[in-house]
Amino acid sequence: MPARIGASSGACILPALTTYPTGVWLIGAAGHVGTCTLAGWAAVRAGLIPPTGLVTAAGPLAAAPLCGFDAAVFGGHDLGVPALTASADALVAEGILPAAVVAAAPVQAALRQAQAELRVGVDGDGGWDELVRIRSELAAFRDRHQLPRVVVVNLASTEPPAAVAGLPVEPEALLAAVRAGARLPASAIYALAALDLGLAYVNFTPSLGSDLPALDALARARGAVHAGADGKTGQTLLKTVLAPMFAIRRLAVKSWVSHNLLGNADGRALDDPERRASKQRSKGAALGAILGYEPEHKVGIEYVPSYGDWKLAWDRIVFAGFGGAEMTLELTWRGSDTALAAPLCIDLIRLVELAQRRGEVGVLPHLAVFFKKPLGTDEHRLERQWQALLEHVLTPGGDA
Amino acid sequence: MPARIGASSGACILPALTTYPTGVWLIGAAGHVGTCTLAGWAAVRAGLIPPTGLVTAAGPLAAAPLCGFDAAVFGGHDLGVPALTASADALVAEGILPAAVVAAAPVQAALRQAQAELRVGVDGDGGWDELVRIRSELAAFRDRHQLPRVVVVNLASTEPPAAVAGLPVEPEALLAAVRAGARLPASAIYALAALDLGLAYVNFTPSLGSDLPALDALARARGAVHAGADGKTGQTLLKTVLAPMFAIRRLAVKSWVSHNLLGNADGRALDDPERRASKQRSKGAALGAILGYEPEHKVGIEYVPSYGDWKLAWDRIVFAGFGGAEMTLELTWRGSDTALAAPLCIDLIRLVELAQRRGEVGVLPHLAVFFKKPLGTDEHRLERQWQALLEHVLTPGGDA
Amino acid sequence: MPARIGASSGACILPALTTYPTGVWLIGAAGHVGTCTLAGWAAVRAGLIPPTGLVTAAGPLAAAPLCGFDAAVFGGHDLGVPALTASADALVAEGILPAAVVAAAPVQAALRQAQAELRVGVDGDGGWDELVRIRSELAAFRDRHQLPRVVVVNLASTEPPAAVAGLPVEPEALLAAVRAGARLPASAIYALAALDLGLAYVNFTPSLGSDLPALDALARARGAVHAGADGKTGQTLLKTVLAPMFAIRRLAVKSWVSHNLLGNADGRALDDPERRASKQRSKGAALGAILGYEPEHKVGIEYVPSYGDWKLAWDRIVFAGFGGAEMTLELTWRGSDTALAAPLCIDLIRLVELAQRRGEVGVLPHLAVFFKKPLGTDEHRLERQWQALLEHVLTPGGDA
Amino acid sequence: MPARIGASSGACILPALTTYPTGVWLIGAAGHVGTCTLAGWAAVRAGLIPPTGLVTAAGPLAAAPLCGFDAAVFGGHDLGVPALTASADALVAEGILPAAVVAAAPVQAALRQAQAELRVGVDGDGGWDELVRIRSELAAFRDRHQLPRVVVVNLASTEPPAAVAGLPVEPEALLAAVRAGARLPASAIYALAALDLGLAYVNFTPSLGSDLPALDALARARGAVHAGADGKTGQTLLKTVLAPMFAIRRLAVKSWVSHNLLGNADGRALDDPERRASKQRSKGAALGAILGYEPEHKVGIEYVPSYGDWKLAWDRIVFAGFGGAEMTLELTWRGSDTALAAPLCIDLIRLVELAQRRGEVGVLPHLAVFFKKPLGTDEHRLERQWQALLEHVLTPGGDA
Repeated sequence: MPARIGASSGACILPALTTYPTGVWLIGAAGHVGTCTLAGWAAVRAGLIPPTGLVTAAGPLAAAPLCGFDAAVFGGHDLGVPALTASADALVAEGILPAAVVAAAPVQAALRQAQAELRVGVDGDGGWDELVRIRSELAAFRDRHQLPRVVVVNLASTEPPAAVAGLPVEPEALLAAVRAGARLPASAIYALAALDLGLAYVNFTPSLGSDLPALDALARARGAVHAGADGKTGQTLLKTVLAPMFAIRRLAVKSWVSHNLLGNADGRALDDPERRASKQRSKGAALGAILGYEPEHKVGIEYVPSYGDWKLAWDRIVFAGFGGAEMTLELTWRGSDTALAAPLCIDLIRLVELAQRRGEVGVLPHLAVFFKKPLGTDEHRLERQWQALLEHVLTPGGDA
Repeated sequence: MPARIGASSGACILPALTTYPTGVWLIGAAGHVGTCTLAGWAAVRAGLIPPTGLVTAAGPLAAAPLCGFDAAVFGGHDLGVPALTASADALVAEGILPAAVVAAAPVQAALRQAQAELRVGVDGDGGWDELVRIRSELAAFRDRHQLPRVVVVNLASTEPPAAVAGLPVEPEALLAAVRAGARLPASAIYALAALDLGLAYVNFTPSLGSDLPALDALARARGAVHAGADGKTGQTLLKTVLAPMFAIRRLAVKSWVSHNLLGNADGRALDDPERRASKQRSKGAALGAILGYEPEHKVGIEYVPSYGDWKLAWDRIVFAGFGGAEMTLELTWRGSDTALAAPLCIDLIRLVELAQRRGEVGVLPHLAVFFKKPLGTDEHRLERQWQALLEHVLTPGGDA
Repeated sequence: MPARIGASSGACILPALTTYPTGVWLIGAAGHVGTCTLAGWAAVRAGLIPPTGLVTAAGPLAAAPLCGFDAAVFGGHDLGVPALTASADALVAEGILPAAVVAAAPVQAALRQAQAELRVGVDGDGGWDELVRIRSELAAFRDRHQLPRVVVVNLASTEPPAAVAGLPVEPEALLAAVRAGARLPASAIYALAALDLGLAYVNFTPSLGSDLPALDALARARGAVHAGADGKTGQTLLKTVLAPMFAIRRLAVKSWVSHNLLGNADGRALDDPERRASKQRSKGAALGAILGYEPEHKVGIEYVPSYGDWKLAWDRIVFAGFGGAEMTLELTWRGSDTALAAPLCIDLIRLVELAQRRGEVGVLPHLAVFFKKPLGTDEHRLERQWQALLEHVLTPGGDA
Repeated sequence: MPARIGASSGACILPALTTYPTGVWLIGAAGHVGTCTLAGWAAVRAGLIPPTGLVTAAGPLAAAPLCGFDAAVFGGHDLGVPALTASADALVAEGILPAAVVAAAPVQAALRQAQAELRVGVDGDGGWDELVRIRSELAAFRDRHQLPRVVVVNLASTEPPAAVAGLPVEPEALLAAVRAGARLPASAIYALAALDLGLAYVNFTPSLGSDLPALDALARARGAVHAGADGKTGQTLLKTVLAPMFAIRRLAVKSWVSHNLLGNADGRALDDPERRASKQRSKGAALGAILGYEPEHKVGIEYVPSYGDWKLAWDRIVFAGFGGAEMTLELTWRGSDTALAAPLCIDLIRLVELAQRRGEVGVLPHLAVFFKKPLGTDEHRLERQWQALLEHVLTPGGDA
């Protein structure tokens, strides 16, 4: 990477961080993950909860010149304008955040601040009218708060797979097509709006988002960054440490059967076969890439309403060892979908803001550690992704 | 490392490999792992089984100038002189190796060859008489076959923890003490004999072996190499990929309960509380080292005779996520203890022979990926150990 | 039950068993379960294997006046006329029966005997022509061997759910409809043929079989017996002991998620959504019936070819306890589908023959313990079904 | 059973229930189970929680003439006189009872009532002085509240196995021995005191309690009833439905490995090898009794403090099927130890009171369904125990 704006001698001459806030715009702000990101950011800032699960608040990345927790302004889109306090109460009811944390004054203040910046988003596909509206709402948020940088994060429900075959690969041609009546999935409309304004865009879902050549080119043209896709919070996280083990030891994986049971809004959306296909595609990427071959691989997703936010991943792996005998590994992982996702969102916001501040542009493959289907790289092994992240962020002046 | 004998310009001027064989001396040769190593080596050489589970026969390390499978002579110690063909039949009965493989002529020939070199070993502690006898048997094996290098591998049953507090730290002082009547665990007697002769010593068990300052100094004095301890074949293997995941993501592990159920000779030995303590110490090392803190950690080992060689590891991990909610991971791993261990032995023999041929001396920390309690390094993370191994073996002229 | 032929003073005046053989006709004879039933019957008779898994060869039912293992003649239908020796070799390759058992002379002789009586069956639906042919083949088998009683057992692949809404409920009307062109699933054609001849019919699959009012009436009219449906071999077996536990203790089951992974021909058939629907219906019956309410209940079936005959059932149950706290039970069951099913077939043959000999007619609800979806009763609790079986079979002169 | 006092024509002429209260005396009243029994009784009475997990409040036993929830007076012993409100708060903190339930006025009132009746109990062994004191405290409780019947329930920590070999088998001889200086475990002192007064005694723990010939004889002499031992709340509950399944199907259990992980006070007590031996003996009884043979059977208990009250039972069963192939069943059960135990205590109090009121004397084997090691019967099968309970309680005038 030839040049980082103002980064010739390391982090020290970056603009002083405390003089301006970072803007954060959450698409799906009133959902579980959005609300937990909002409330959790405030709770960490106020010292109400320890930074468990955050990789940027302690450990090696704490040494990076990341934006402080004090310096952020939140806004976002959702379908309708739900009360964020009600969303936060739902987090308590589900056992995700303690009641005392949500009731604390700093968290309530943060929810109020964000409530004032909540706008009605795009449902399903969108066209030129939606693009213009979203873009102007993002610009207004940026201008109203004089934000030098805004990170837009997609946390909305998974969309069905998009038909992208005929879409133009040049940014201006894509914009022209939309103006002429083409429609895109909402996630791509948001990405288009954000990147066209030079804002950062992060796709935390398996939806299309910025995963189009024209959008990557647009990001580079506008000096924007983007990253994705689909936060790596559970079963795939495990796959990206276990598959390397089988690969290193050259044990031959014959079958890998995965099931996911969940009962939250994400689970309800994924009960739809088309949306589930998006998710399954995202979840299926890592295994073959790491092993170098494709075993029998099943990824099931089931909606069990009474599970609520507490998802359950079950995996059964059959592999052959020396001499051919079959061996097995079985796993059960149970966690709050939201509590696993929200800290990754917080980390991504901070790391994307840093990249933007350092003058990076285009896709950010060094953030692969956060994603099931990382843009810009084929590296799925967690440890290698982590090493790449540390090296990129902590090496003065460069990411080699 | 300043000098490798004859290695100034890389691997190309190493002595031609085909002109002489490598000696392999297995302590516990007639046990399951010993016999499977013998039979498996022959079976791979003859193409009777694929090299599944071997890291040196395919993948990146296949490019290293390792000794060929054609060039090895086997011998070993055991308690008594059991028939290796009977041991091999037991492998078939347990479902470890296919009947046709063990019955094949190349495997039977290999068993006959090793049978001729089987000697009665040391049971329990040993002193000067045992040392002298073992040393002379090893020297005779080396001389009889004109072996430039011999790798001695300890596969014998786990010993109780040894009292090593007062032992001399200088090699000659240790030898003098033994001559004067001091007794050492058998595993250390073998190590002392091997290293004193300049032979390589590998400790695949949790027993004491070469893990004494005096023995490491002796190895360096005699130009010998040594490595250990305790082959990483199952539960600990999993820990060294899963614990890094928790560490990377800064999820807070609260408890990690591990149980091992096994029914083979190793299991029977570990049914003794003292021997079990050795194993538990070995198995307990990795977790705290990787996490950076000590969660509640239980490691149980139970002897279930009807399980035979098919061990079962069960783990339950409770961890806190963002906001403090408790989450869980449960694992069940089932595999043949022997089929998991034997390929590691084969790989170690080849890699240790290479190190010796390259003129390395002393402990070999680059082999940490094979061990539960690696000598010479505190690195327990599998992926990092693997990277270190590749870098060490494949970098021309150096291991940086 | 008013009358048992010749049974007024108990079992002692039943016709002497050794004077004639029992006929057994297996539909799907060359499949895994069919072949294992044939070979297993011969192996038990010859003392080559212990009667593990058989409920009629030891324990309380061994006291019942059941037909001996010596007195049976086997025949059957399949699609084409596969070699039963090849089918038996497949059982060995899958680890279901030991090689020495299948190779033994008594087993080979039994396979030869049955091979001579193997006929080409009905594929898919059948009409009048198929009915006439099947009926005449069954009659010929009976007459050729002078069999006083023949038990026909359906072991063929699961059929899609049948449209039975408009079918006549009177036997003669059903026969007339078929003569006039109506078509029935193959399983019902076999049942119609068997019952019309007065033979016993057992449906070991979830297919329609004899589960039609007209067929039950036909059985009663012809003095025949029938039983079914769908052998209870794994996950449902567990449900019928675990659900009663929750019911007895009045623990409130909130969700019960079940997955079945299997790789044999049954699994391949069930990979078809329509056939799977049949199976799922059958597997879903017990839970609500036992609990008295319907929790969230998912039953997934997946085809994993490399699993072969070794099916895996995984269940996760969430239930509320006193005070409302959620608790969980998770289960993994792994077994050979065939080795679990075949002994039940053998037991059913013997018990159905006894019922027929005792003069019982119509459906046999006392055999519910063998079935997922028992005909003639709503009792699903295993222990109660077992008690009912013992009482019915062992009580002299009556089944109360 | 020849006679029930006043029960000649069924339940209808039993004394009217509402005219006097039932006394309940809990040994270990301030422990988790004791407090949950107190608070839970009040919460059910007030309709604050549904009767989930109670077998006497709904279902067939609801028809029995049991004492009402309105009519009970509680008291008890503990070590020291802890505040029951603090104990109840601990139940909330552990997620056993909802905060709103414990805070509700009826529950607080019940805690206050019981607090006034809390006395300092016996720690370790006791002799004549302790016996006299306990007996007088029980008598005073009875007299103070004019209680026609008092049920004493032992909920105290598990004691080490007691040496009972030389104890007299006649009640008066036992009393004389204690008077002369013999000492008994506390649980037996309580039983002796209660039964000597003609009160009912229930042993919910594996401690000795009333399991002495002299105590049973004393109960019969004094017209008292007693029952035990060790509440069947988790792993053993599962064993008593799963082992019958293996027995019915004649599947051959080869090994059954059980582990229990728990972190509450019971777990801490069981971390002591002697007390653990008591528990293991109790937990080991059912399996062989049901199967009719003894497989390899391991029962491990481990103290994992961070688990708190949420115990985890893991079982792995290996069994042989038809043809000898090995199959497996694995189970994980997770629940609140307290929430599983407390409703059983409530049920036992009501059922024991009824037995006493009906004039039954001596041991009460019809209560076996509640216990790991039932006194007075060898029946361990849950369904049979349940049938026996229903028959005994619901059959007018008799328990046949």
